[in-house]
Amino acid sequence: MSEQPGRIMSGEMAEQPAVLRRILELGAAPIRAVADAIGAREPRFVLLTGRGTSDHAALYAKYLLEIRLGLPCGLTSMSTTTAYGARSRLRDVLVVAVSQSGGSPDLVASTRAAREAGAITLAVTNNADSPLAAVSEFHIDIRAGAEKALPATKTYTASLLSLYLLVEGLRGGDGAAAGALPDLAARVLVRQDEVRALASRYRFAERMVITSRGYGYPTAKEAALKLMETSYIPALAYSGADLLHGPLAMVDNISPVIAVVPDGKGGEALQPVLDRLRGRGADLCVVGPALQAEAASVGFALPTEGVPEELQPILEILPLQLLAYEVTIARGQDPDAPRALAKVTETH
Amino acid sequence: MSEQPGRIMSGEMAEQPAVLRRILELGAAPIRAVADAIGAREPRFVLLTGRGTSDHAALYAKYLLEIRLGLPCGLTSMSTTTAYGARSRLRDVLVVAVSQSGGSPDLVASTRAAREAGAITLAVTNNADSPLAAVSEFHIDIRAGAEKALPATKTYTASLLSLYLLVEGLRGGDGAAAGALPDLAARVLVRQDEVRALASRYRFAERMVITSRGYGYPTAKEAALKLMETSYIPALAYSGADLLHGPLAMVDNISPVIAVVPDGKGGEALQPVLDRLRGRGADLCVVGPALQAEAASVGFALPTEGVPEELQPILEILPLQLLAYEVTIARGQDPDAPRALAKVTETH
Repeated sequence: MSEQPGRIMSGEMAEQPAVLRRILELGAAPIRAVADAIGAREPRFVLLTGRGTSDHAALYAKYLLEIRLGLPCGLTSMSTTTAYGARSRLRDVLVVAVSQSGGSPDLVASTRAAREAGAITLAVTNNADSPLAAVSEFHIDIRAGAEKALPATKTYTASLLSLYLLVEGLRGGDGAAAGALPDLAARVLVRQDEVRALASRYRFAERMVITSRGYGYPTAKEAALKLMETSYIPALAYSGADLLHGPLAMVDNISPVIAVVPDGKGGEALQPVLDRLRGRGADLCVVGPALQAEAASVGFALPTEGVPEELQPILEILPLQLLAYEVTIARGQDPDAPRALAKVTETH
Repeated sequence: MSEQPGRIMSGEMAEQPAVLRRILELGAAPIRAVADAIGAREPRFVLLTGRGTSDHAALYAKYLLEIRLGLPCGLTSMSTTTAYGARSRLRDVLVVAVSQSGGSPDLVASTRAAREAGAITLAVTNNADSPLAAVSEFHIDIRAGAEKALPATKTYTASLLSLYLLVEGLRGGDGAAAGALPDLAARVLVRQDEVRALASRYRFAERMVITSRGYGYPTAKEAALKLMETSYIPALAYSGADLLHGPLAMVDNISPVIAVVPDGKGGEALQPVLDRLRGRGADLCVVGPALQAEAASVGFALPTEGVPEELQPILEILPLQLLAYEVTIARGQDPDAPRALAKVTETH
């Protein structure tokens, strides 16, 4: 363990407001140009691919594309190409590969295969010189700066904002609603003391359940991954609807639940699940609008006033990144150096 | 708890060879007719939907459609329709809804919306009189007979075989390879004593990781759900590739791992993950071909000789259903009556 455990992750989380501002200032125009070029090709379906944190960013883009553009989407099962050699018919299909490093060999191979099969290919990476950017017809640079901590934080929010701007470009919007995010993110990140108090609650947890619905569901998945890869607490993410189909049996008063409650339709759809959890006496922490947070056992109130629901995921994940960090520190482990992980994972 | 805990689940698991035989004898021709009618419409993209166990059957179909037909697929995020009112452009899109009961209101609503938006709609259910069957243009009856235990078992394998026959029909195959399955399933199910010995290993486990790749991945997800909803042990399913991207930090010599190893390309792609797990001293149980099972800490050898990889999932899940049952009995709980679950879950 380093002398200051978590120093790198902590520094990278703190950079997020500046990264978001950089994307809005420098990234918006090139992203708009990519959107215009792709829009002119009139894709009819979208296939999205990523692994780990990037998979959650891809899932966020899926919600945006389906809800705001009416474009049917799928998340790729990469092994169909890399292990089984499937050659899909990809005319009119936009294939989006999200990868922090742009270096994962299987993603490069599957994207190359997709391009050869006629797809419009787009790489979304933090490295414009990466092999993935090179094999793709289009590239979006998420401009997060080098990420050195093993748990990805700033590249996640940078991917979300970049994908939001892409979809805004495709639908002819101006993305102006994102302008408030850098300041709002800074307002959330200074509340580390609040999160530290929450962390003490979970220090000895043997398992956790994280739930949400709609736009908040990728947040739940990313929060679960962050908690697991730093603290090793088994954290299970379920959409609220899926939670009622089985795993609810696991939730009782010794299994804490974190609910990510979007301020909007996703949050409304989640209410029956929250009622059911409260009825079972679950220990419920709500990350969401103040009224929702106050109605739970504990909560973290997000500044969602005036923020469209589709942009809230960029704020929702911040206290949960901090929580993963603080729980890990409380357990005497180093968030910068989880066991067994390498930053670029070479899956083939 | 009933006088014979698990009696209903046990009986339904035992019915599986007969159900598979019934599908081959009575279901194959109607499924072929549905496949012919859908094939004539030349779908270019497939969206699949299900919740819980049915979601895993949908994922299996996604692998089949992508690998064997080259049809790009996506799994639906149902809330985009039911919560956000998204109206996707669905011309040339085949929408497949998998549901045991055919009664889930959100699935009925999203399928109706898809049909109105121009999709070719197919319901795969265990109830030909269900609302879902009624709103869909096409219907496949999986002929499993009434399922009364809360953990779904025979409807899962029945869904897999029905979906296999559908894809065979779409590709002009005869599905003859499935003929051996009823007998092979019976050979697996009589080995309950072997599974009982395995169950004693996991009786006190605080968490489990289940991994696979390719065609075996839906099996890993379904096995994890089965374990969780009966025994309440948090069981985390990861594709082998995803496991290397983070959650591996959680695996150590106190976190048992079950690997579902297909006899084929999925199993080959999983080998580096198995090596890595062995290198970390993980307690590894392999469900797969005899040689693979023998090389692990413990194993359950499947009769995969002569069974194409794409049909193996119908056998793979059987010992894992039995395992969920036996672990739950060993923990003094009743597999028939998990806490908090209703058979038809009314998510909206």
